[in-house]
Amino acid sequence: MAAGNLFVIFGDKEEEKMYSQKMYELGSKKSTIRTIFEYGKQRAAIVGEENIYDFSLGNPNVPTPEFVKQAIIDILNEEDPCDVHGYTVAAGDPKVRETLADSINERFGTNFSMQNLFMTAGAAASITICFKALAEEGDEFITFAPYFPEYKCFVESVGSKLNVVPANIETFQINFEKFEEMINEHTKAVIINSPNNPSGVVYSEDTIKKLAEILTKKSDEYGHPVFIISDEPYREVVYDGAEVPYVTKYYANTLVCYSYSKSFSLAGERIGYIVVPNEVSEFADIYAAVAGAARVLTHVNAPSLFQKVVARCAGKPSDISIYEKNRELLYNGLVEAGIACVKPEGAFYLFPRTLEEDDRAFCEKAKAYDLLLVPGSDFGCPGHFRASYCIKTSTIEKSLPVFKKFVKEVYGI
Amino acid sequence: MAAGNLFVIFGDKEEEKMYSQKMYELGSKKSTIRTIFEYGKQRAAIVGEENIYDFSLGNPNVPTPEFVKQAIIDILNEEDPCDVHGYTVAAGDPKVRETLADSINERFGTNFSMQNLFMTAGAAASITICFKALAEEGDEFITFAPYFPEYKCFVESVGSKLNVVPANIETFQINFEKFEEMINEHTKAVIINSPNNPSGVVYSEDTIKKLAEILTKKSDEYGHPVFIISDEPYREVVYDGAEVPYVTKYYANTLVCYSYSKSFSLAGERIGYIVVPNEVSEFADIYAAVAGAARVLTHVNAPSLFQKVVARCAGKPSDISIYEKNRELLYNGLVEAGIACVKPEGAFYLFPRTLEEDDRAFCEKAKAYDLLLVPGSDFGCPGHFRASYCIKTSTIEKSLPVFKKFVKEVYGI
Repeated sequence: MAAGNLFVIFGDKEEEKMYSQKMYELGSKKSTIRTIFEYGKQRAAIVGEENIYDFSLGNPNVPTPEFVKQAIIDILNEEDPCDVHGYTVAAGDPKVRETLADSINERFGTNFSMQNLFMTAGAAASITICFKALAEEGDEFITFAPYFPEYKCFVESVGSKLNVVPANIETFQINFEKFEEMINEHTKAVIINSPNNPSGVVYSEDTIKKLAEILTKKSDEYGHPVFIISDEPYREVVYDGAEVPYVTKYYANTLVCYSYSKSFSLAGERIGYIVVPNEVSEFADIYAAVAGAARVLTHVNAPSLFQKVVARCAGKPSDISIYEKNRELLYNGLVEAGIACVKPEGAFYLFPRTLEEDDRAFCEKAKAYDLLLVPGSDFGCPGHFRASYCIKTSTIEKSLPVFKKFVKEVYGI
Repeated sequence: MAAGNLFVIFGDKEEEKMYSQKMYELGSKKSTIRTIFEYGKQRAAIVGEENIYDFSLGNPNVPTPEFVKQAIIDILNEEDPCDVHGYTVAAGDPKVRETLADSINERFGTNFSMQNLFMTAGAAASITICFKALAEEGDEFITFAPYFPEYKCFVESVGSKLNVVPANIETFQINFEKFEEMINEHTKAVIINSPNNPSGVVYSEDTIKKLAEILTKKSDEYGHPVFIISDEPYREVVYDGAEVPYVTKYYANTLVCYSYSKSFSLAGERIGYIVVPNEVSEFADIYAAVAGAARVLTHVNAPSLFQKVVARCAGKPSDISIYEKNRELLYNGLVEAGIACVKPEGAFYLFPRTLEEDDRAFCEKAKAYDLLLVPGSDFGCPGHFRASYCIKTSTIEKSLPVFKKFVKEVYGI
C-alpha cells in the first residue's frame, strides 16, 4: 500500500495504523523547551548568536573535568580492552558498584554495598526503571510542582497516572496540605527532585522529615508502602554550603536515582545508578524487578567504559564555580529589574515570577527582545518562568540591560 | 508493612503487589545461557578454568581494535569536551549520521542520508524501538527458528505476540512453506537475523528475494505493509567471502538494526543505529515513531563519545581472524567426532545436531564432561545445540578429545 496512512478494518472496533500512533505523537511533538531552543538557533542565524539571550536549555556548559579525560585514557592504557568494552553483568560491574557504594557511604554515612546499586544509562532511565519496577495496574504516582515535564511521559509509559501537587510558590518546598489531600491508596510512590529542576530549590531536612512522617502514616493506613523515588541529578550542584539530605536516612522505602550528567558534565554519555537500600520492603524482589524493568527497557547494561570512569572519579569534586557566578549575576540582575524570585541553593535554574499572570504571554513578549525563557506552565506552575543559567557568563551580562528595557517598556517597571 | 509480600484489596478483582510481578519475573528468572555460564564459573573454581570447556556465551573475545582506542584518544584531545560528552539530538549527532550514511552507501550501493539514520544504544534497543514504533494493539510479529530468545521478551514488552516459524534444519535458510501458513493480516513485521545467532548461517540472496516476493504479495493482499526488521549485529562477521545481502535493496519496507557490539567488540558500550529508508511507507511518520519509541524506552541519546568513535572508525575492517580459525577447528573437530553440523558462513556460533532427540538431555550429559553447551530448544529449535566459539583457541583444541570421549562413551560412536 503506497499512499493513505489510515485504513479501517471493517468489523473491527478501531482504526488500525501501520505504525504506533502514540509513538508517532511522542516523537513528533516537540517540547516547548526544544521549540524555543530551535527558534533561538534560527534567530541567531539572522541577528547573530551574541544578540540572542537563550535561557532555554538545561545543557551543562562547564567542560567535563580534566580528571574524567585522564581516567578514560588511564583505563584504555591499563585495562584489558575486552573487559573495558565488553558486556558487564546487567546490574553493572561489581567492582564499580562496590567503589561507588563505598564513596556514597563515606560522604553520607550510609551503609550500602554493591548489592544495593544498579548501574543505569542516566536519570531518565533510572526513574523510568523505578516506575516500571513498581507499577501495577491502577497505580498512581505523585510529584510536586514545579516538576520536570518528562515525568508525565515516563509515568504514563508504564501505564500509570501522574498526579501533580500544586506548588508552594513562597518557598518551593512541598505544599503538604495539598499533598495530604491528594495521596490515596493507589499512590505507589512520590517522586521528589531536589535540588529541583526548574526551581533550583533544595528540599530542607524539615521537608524530608515531614514527608517521611506522612508517608509512614499513609503506608500504615493503606497497608502497603508508599515509596519515595528521589531523582537527584543535581545533588552536587549546590551553593552557599547547602546540604541535600540523603533521603534513605529519613525514609526506608526510598529508591535513589542518580546521574553524572550534571555533576561531571556527562549528559550525553548516559551514566548513573539506582540505589535500592536493604531497608526497602521486599528488598530482593524489588531489586529483581529493577533488573527486569531495565531489561525490557533494553538497557542491557550501562555503558561499560563510563561505568569504570565514574568509579575512578568517585568522590571527586564537581566544578560549579561558573554556575555559582552565573547564579549571582542573573539573580541580582533580575531582582534589580523588578522581577521577584526565590533565591535557589542548587541546580542551574532560576524560576522567577512573571510580571503578568499569563506566563506564556510574558515569555512571548520577552521573545520580542530576544530573551528566550520557558513558561512555568510547562513545569506545572503557571505565573513563573524558567531561566537556565548554564550558559556563557557574558550572555548573562549582556542580557541584564535587555531585561531592564523589556520590563520597563512592556510592564512600566 | 514489614512482612508479607502479597496482600488482597478486598472487593478488588485482583491481588495487588507492592511491585510489578512481571518485572520481578523478568529480572529474577535467569536465562538458560546465563545459568550454564554461571555453573561454568562455579565449576572452574573447583576443577580449574583450564578444565572447563565453556561454549555458552556469545561475548566477543577479539580485543577491541587499536584504531578504536586511538579514535577515543584523538577525540578527547581534539574536540570540545562539552560537545564530546554533552547531549546530542535524540536521533544522534548529525555529522555522525552523515558519515555513517556515506559509509553504508559506499559499501552497499544504497542512497541514505543522515535523515535515514537514528543512533541507538545497540541492537536490543534498535529492535525493540522498531517493535514499539510499529506495534498497535492486536499486532503480531514473526521470526524464524532458530532465533535469539530475547526477541520474545522484547516483542511481548510492547504488547504484541511473537510467532515462530519452525526451522529448515537442512540449511537453516527460511522455511517458506511454514512461513506462508503462518503469516496473516495481523502480522506487522518479520524479524530476520543474518548472519544468524545461533545457526551462524547467512541468508542467501535467493532467500531474501523470495521473502521480499511473499511480503510484497501479502502486503497487497492485506492492504497494509508487512515490514522486515533486519537485525544485523553480525553483518561484518562472515567467512569464505560470504555476501550478506543489504535487505533494503530487495524490499522497501525494511528497517535495518545495526550494532557495533560484534564488529568492533564494543558490546558493553551500547552503540548502534536504525536505518529507516526513504522508501519505507510513510517514512517521516515512521521515523518520528522511532524517535517516540526511543524516548519512552528512555534512550535519551545513544552514548555520545561512542557516536563519534564509530563515525571516526566508519568503514574500518573487523578483525575476524581468530573467529575464522576457531570455526575451522571446532567444525572439523565436531564432524570428526561424529556430530553433524551445517557449516555456517557467519557469526561465531555452531549449531550442530544433538545425538539424541532430547537436546536438553544431550547437553546435560555433555556437562558431565565439562562441555558446556546450550540446548537448541532455547532457540526454538530442538534436536540441536549451540556452541559459541568466541573463546580461546586453546580451549577449543583441548575440548576436541573430550568431545570424542563423550560421544564414544555416551553414544557409542
